[in-house]
Formats: sequence, C-alpha cells, structure tokens
Amino acid sequence: MGTVPLLSDDAASPEARAVFDDIRARRQTDYVNNFWRALAHDPEQLRSVWERAQGVMAPGALDPLVKELVYVAVSTANGCAYCVHSHTAAARAKGMTPAMHAELLAVIAMAMQTNALATALGVEVDERFRA
Amino acid sequence: MGTVPLLSDDAASPEARAVFDDIRARRQTDYVNNFWRALAHDPEQLRSVWERAQGVMAPGALDPLVKELVYVAVSTANGCAYCVHSHTAAARAKGMTPAMHAELLAVIAMAMQTNALATALGVEVDERFRA
Amino acid sequence: MGTVPLLSDDAASPEARAVFDDIRARRQTDYVNNFWRALAHDPEQLRSVWERAQGVMAPGALDPLVKELVYVAVSTANGCAYCVHSHTAAARAKGMTPAMHAELLAVIAMAMQTNALATALGVEVDERFRA
Amino acid sequence: MGTVPLLSDDAASPEARAVFDDIRARRQTDYVNNFWRALAHDPEQLRSVWERAQGVMAPGALDPLVKELVYVAVSTANGCAYCVHSHTAAARAKGMTPAMHAELLAVIAMAMQTNALATALGVEVDERFRA
Amino acid sequence: MGTVPLLSDDAASPEARAVFDDIRARRQTDYVNNFWRALAHDPEQLRSVWERAQGVMAPGALDPLVKELVYVAVSTANGCAYCVHSHTAAARAKGMTPAMHAELLAVIAMAMQTNALATALGVEVDERFRA
Amino acid sequence: MGTVPLLSDDAASPEARAVFDDIRARRQTDYVNNFWRALAHDPEQLRSVWERAQGVMAPGALDPLVKELVYVAVSTANGCAYCVHSHTAAARAKGMTPAMHAELLAVIAMAMQTNALATALGVEVDERFRA
Repeated sequence: MGTVPLLSDDAASPEARAVFDDIRARRQTDYVNNFWRALAHDPEQLRSVWERAQGVMAPGALDPLVKELVYVAVSTANGCAYCVHSHTAAARAKGMTPAMHAELLAVIAMAMQTNALATALGVEVDERFRA
Repeated sequence: MGTVPLLSDDAASPEARAVFDDIRARRQTDYVNNFWRALAHDPEQLRSVWERAQGVMAPGALDPLVKELVYVAVSTANGCAYCVHSHTAAARAKGMTPAMHAELLAVIAMAMQTNALATALGVEVDERFRA
Repeated sequence: MGTVPLLSDDAASPEARAVFDDIRARRQTDYVNNFWRALAHDPEQLRSVWERAQGVMAPGALDPLVKELVYVAVSTANGCAYCVHSHTAAARAKGMTPAMHAELLAVIAMAMQTNALATALGVEVDERFRA
Repeated sequence: MGTVPLLSDDAASPEARAVFDDIRARRQTDYVNNFWRALAHDPEQLRSVWERAQGVMAPGALDPLVKELVYVAVSTANGCAYCVHSHTAAARAKGMTPAMHAELLAVIAMAMQTNALATALGVEVDERFRA
Repeated sequence: MGTVPLLSDDAASPEARAVFDDIRARRQTDYVNNFWRALAHDPEQLRSVWERAQGVMAPGALDPLVKELVYVAVSTANGCAYCVHSHTAAARAKGMTPAMHAELLAVIAMAMQTNALATALGVEVDERFRA
Repeated sequence: MGTVPLLSDDAASPEARAVFDDIRARRQTDYVNNFWRALAHDPEQLRSVWERAQGVMAPGALDPLVKELVYVAVSTANGCAYCVHSHTAAARAKGMTPAMHAELLAVIAMAMQTNALATALGVEVDERFRA
C-alpha cells in the first residue's frame, strides 16, 4: 500500500530528518512510524503537523489519555485504520487499560447508533440545546 | 424537519410513556427531548436505546464526562447536528468547561486532519501497532 | 439554504422543463421536488440523473420498495437530510409501513454499531468471506 | 491487522466461550468469525451485540435477506471492509443472487451520487417530505 | 443552531478582535462570517486556523480556485453544509463559472459512486498503483 | 480481499470483454485494472460507469488534472483506499507533480479540520452564502 514511498532517514531531506530526530527525542524511542515517513515528502507539512500535534495533545484542561480516546473515536468514525491502530497504541502507552478500551468502544458504538437514528428520524434540534 | 412526528405524552403509547417517565425521573427534569419523542414510534427500540445508554454512559473505568466528550467526537465526525448539540449540552451539564470544549475541538480537528493525510498517503499500519 | 436558486418552470431551460414534464408524467403529480429544481441548472446532469434513477429504481431482481429502503440506509449513513426525507417519503408511497420503518431503523443502527466495532478492533477479514 | 488479538476458544473467558457456543448452535457451523473473536475481550459487549443482532436480523416486517442488503448498504457507505465482506457473505447465504447483488450495488451507487448532489447544492427539504 | 453563541466584535476578546481585523483587511470587506465568530471563543485556535488557511489556500503549485474546488469536494463528502456554502461562495468569488460548478458536481458525484462500488466489491489495490 | 472474484478476459462475458477492449484502446495500455474486472460481473453497470467516467472526466470547463484532484479529495474523505490509489496514479499520469500533490493534501487536511469545527460548533450558514 502507499501512494508515496516511505522515506528512510537517508532518503529524507535534512528538514525532514530534523523532524524525525525531534520525534525520537520527544518520544524517547528510535522508532519513527510510517505516518511521518510518508508525510516527509513535504517537510513543511511534516513539521507543521508534528508541532501542532505536540501542542494539541499536551496536558491541558483535558489530560493526554482523554485526548487519545477522543482521537481513537474520531478515527473510528472516519474509518481510518492507520489512525485507529496508531492511536490505540498511543492510548495504551498513556495508560488505557482493557476495561477503559472496552468502555471506549461501547460509547463509540452507542454514538454511532444514535447518530444514525437521529439522522434517519430527522430530529430537529431542541431549542434548549442551542447556545 | 422530521421523517416522523414527535410524539407528545398524550400521543405516546403507554410503553413509550413509561420510558418518558423514566427519563424524567433519572434526569430530574420534566423535559423529554425531541430524540426520544421521535423514537417513541417504536416503543421497544425506545426502551432498548434508553436503557443501553444508561448502562454505557454510567461511571465505570471512564468517567461520564469523558464518555460525553467521546460522544461529541463521534457525532462530529459523522456530521450529526442533533447529536452534536445534545451531547455538547450533556457534556456541559457534566462539567465541561469552555477550556475543555476548546481542547476537545482542537483534538477532533487534529484527528480529522491526520485521518485524511494517512488515508491520502495510503500509509500501511506499522507492525508494532498490530496486536 | 441552497448554493444555487431553485428553478421555477419559467426559469428553467426548455431541456430542463422537458425533464420536469417527464417527472410529472411518470409520477402522476404536478409537484416537482426541490432536488430536481436545483439540479436543473445543469440540464444534462438533470436528465442523466433522472433517467438513471428511473432505470436503477425500477422493479427487477429487487422490488422497488426494497430499493427505497437501501436508499434510505445509504442516505442515513451519509448524513444527507434531504435524501433521508425524500426517500423515506418515497418508501412510504411504495408501501413501507410503520413496522417496516421501525425495523429498517433498527438494522441501520445495528450496522452502524458493528461497523464501528469492527473498525475500532481492526478485525481482519476472514478468508472464507473473500471471493 | 487488529488492535486486539483474536481470542481462540481456549483463550476466551467462560462467558465469551458460551457466546461462541451459541453462535455455533444457531448458525449450525463450527466456525466463529473474527469479529466475535475480537469482541470477546469484552464478554458483556460480545453477548449484548450478539443477542441484539439475533433480534434485529430476525424475520419480522422485513425479511432477513432485505435486512442483510440494508446492512451491506450501510457498511459500504461507512467504508467498513470487514462488514461489507461478512454481510455480503451473509446475504448470499440467505439467497442473494448475482442479479440481486448487482442491483443492490446500483442502488447504493445511485444513492451515493444523489446524496452528494443534494449536499453540494444545499437543497432544502420540501415541506411535503416533513412529517 | 449553534453549540456556542456567535461573538460580536464587542463580545470578542482583544486577541480574537485582532483576527477579525486581519480577516477584514485581507478580504477587503467589513463582513466577518459566522465560522470565525463561533471559533472566536478560543482565540488561539481562531488565529491558528485563520493563519493556516491563509497559507494553505494561497497561490502555489495549485491555483487558489482549484483549491476552493477541492475544498468544496471534501466538504460535500463530509456532509458539512456550512463549509459547502461558504466555499462554494469563495469559489465563485475566485472565478468559478456555472459551467465549472456543474462539472465539479459531476466529478464529485462520479467519485462518490465509484468509491461505493470499489468498497462494496472489496477491490484490492493493483500493484501498479502502489508507490 | 474482494466480495466477488476479479474476472479475467476469458471469464468475462462478451459484453464485458468489449468494455475491457475499449479501456485498452482509450488508455493505450494492455492493462485493465482490478476495479473494472470486479465490476465486470454486471456488464451493463460496467459499461455505464466506464462511459460516464469518460464523459465526466473529459476536458471541459475544468481540465482533466483538476478533475483528478477533486476525485482524490472525495475518495480521501470517503476513506476509499482503492480510489485514492488509482486516482492518485491517474493524477500523476496527467501531470500532478510532487509539489501539487503536497498542496492537494494540505487543502484536504485543512478542509477536514474546518468541516469538523463548523459541525462541532453548529455554525449556522450566513445569509450571504445562500443563493
């Protein structure tokens, strides 16, 4: 699979290589996963996405694990197998237990179901839900 | 809007009315929102969805607010305006602050973006992300 | 709403007007619904979509009501409010009872749920399901 | 692929194993497909989804084959490869002929197309389609 | 509609107001559309999205009109009515003629259709399409 | 993968084989890709989709490369891996450079993000965007 080849460290531009190095440093691992190696064809986009991800996923009003759960939820609804796999792994690395995973899936499945029911019934938004 | 009329208390069957009463009791409000009034045409489905929702959204390994955030995320990815409105309201009722809402939206937006990039690049799932 | 104005009979081109007349004749009603009036800005697309729809939705190996149920299912999954409304109305006109509507919604909701679970679990397709 | 390992009969809990046995008994086959083996990590969800599926897909106002066609339609719109494969196989087992499959695909494709046109044109729902 | 109120100039924070002013200056209009007024509750996200949009939509290897057409296509597939409306208007402002609009819709509709067919048929990617 | 077997030239009906020949002649290649070989089980649908694609993707008010970019955008939003791969290849064959590919992806990613923000915020369409 792949619409572009994955770039090895040697094949990547110096700009992309610098982002790979930052990924390694911040994650304390030598492994750079396929997403970043594919994105490296556009070093500016690579840097922009990586840096934004660092900011968005950092601890804040929501903790990083909650953010990963939300990420898995969106990726599931969008049917993105890559993102489901990578962010399920990330959620586990941040402490997601099997029980939390099971509940996450139950909520996602519940939401999918009521999304469809609300759409098929054409339910109008209640006045009190409007800001 | 609506592919079925919303059922008032008077128009609902006794079975549906019993679910309305349970909604009122558990939520400690007299208000029954449009989703349940539309679903009431199928009292069995109404009861089943309502009861499952009670179980799925209850405190467990994940707390109820986190579950609402996940619900909003799925509903957003699916483009379900009704569910986005109702579960954003529910999240607020369970304690979502404006700062949490802002971070939630930032994570959803980030996920949407990388979902698309991973798909457009056709990135293969890394062996290490497979269970 | 609308990214283009709906074309009245007077505003439509003769080619578009001819399709409107065909819609009226085949449906035995004077009413031309908004979808066709919006599509009429491109008379060739209007004719092509209308004619294809006549062929695809005609009785064949599947009966027209079953085809409408499938149409509602796709429109729901895609979150297309217009199509959900128009094809729910079409399904009723072709004999969909409230009980059939209720079962249709239950199947759609079930599918949405297991679609999400299969995706979130990253389940590999069984060999025996491959042709 | 897979965000969780598939559970063999030996690895599954007694509760999950009981559902596997029920699947075998009701389907009169020894084969338990991957979806259920992945879901078995959460035996309660496994039982709940399996039992609900039995109820929802049973003969009623709609016959079981029609329900499978609807299931394939939703799964296609959601881009769930697993569900498309498993429910296409199920539809065949319930009598879907190649001609029916071809017409199903034609209806799905038609719906996808007009869903997009209605959305891109922003067509407002006709008053007469509202309940 | 709206899960947050739209912020008027007076209600917006100085940081958000500064972005509103930049929008006015770059677009040479006094009008600030609803999207930015809703996003203004998170001034940092407002600035980040606005600035990124300026960069992404600027002339480059692709011209700005082509970028707007792509934007409309994505928004249509996602069923985002707001984005379909705002970017169809933007495309017109950048020179999209009715003939171009008609062809854009025809391509989107064609893609939707073959996307569904490829998914329903489970077509494997040809080796020669892999990078 | 595949819910139907791919049809070789020998296995295809004369009607399907005639379309294969037309594909070869118009594309000046001996290769017929998997999509058409899967669709060949329904020769009428095969011919209809192939001929429509020829018309829709032909030069017109938009040039063929722009149409391929739009096709990739829709296919990405729909998560159709097959279509992403085949139309990325087609875009390259029609002149898409790596710089154009990078900008295409940036626009798609931007649109995905703002689609989600507009939906999560429930932003109402501005009067001035309505036709």
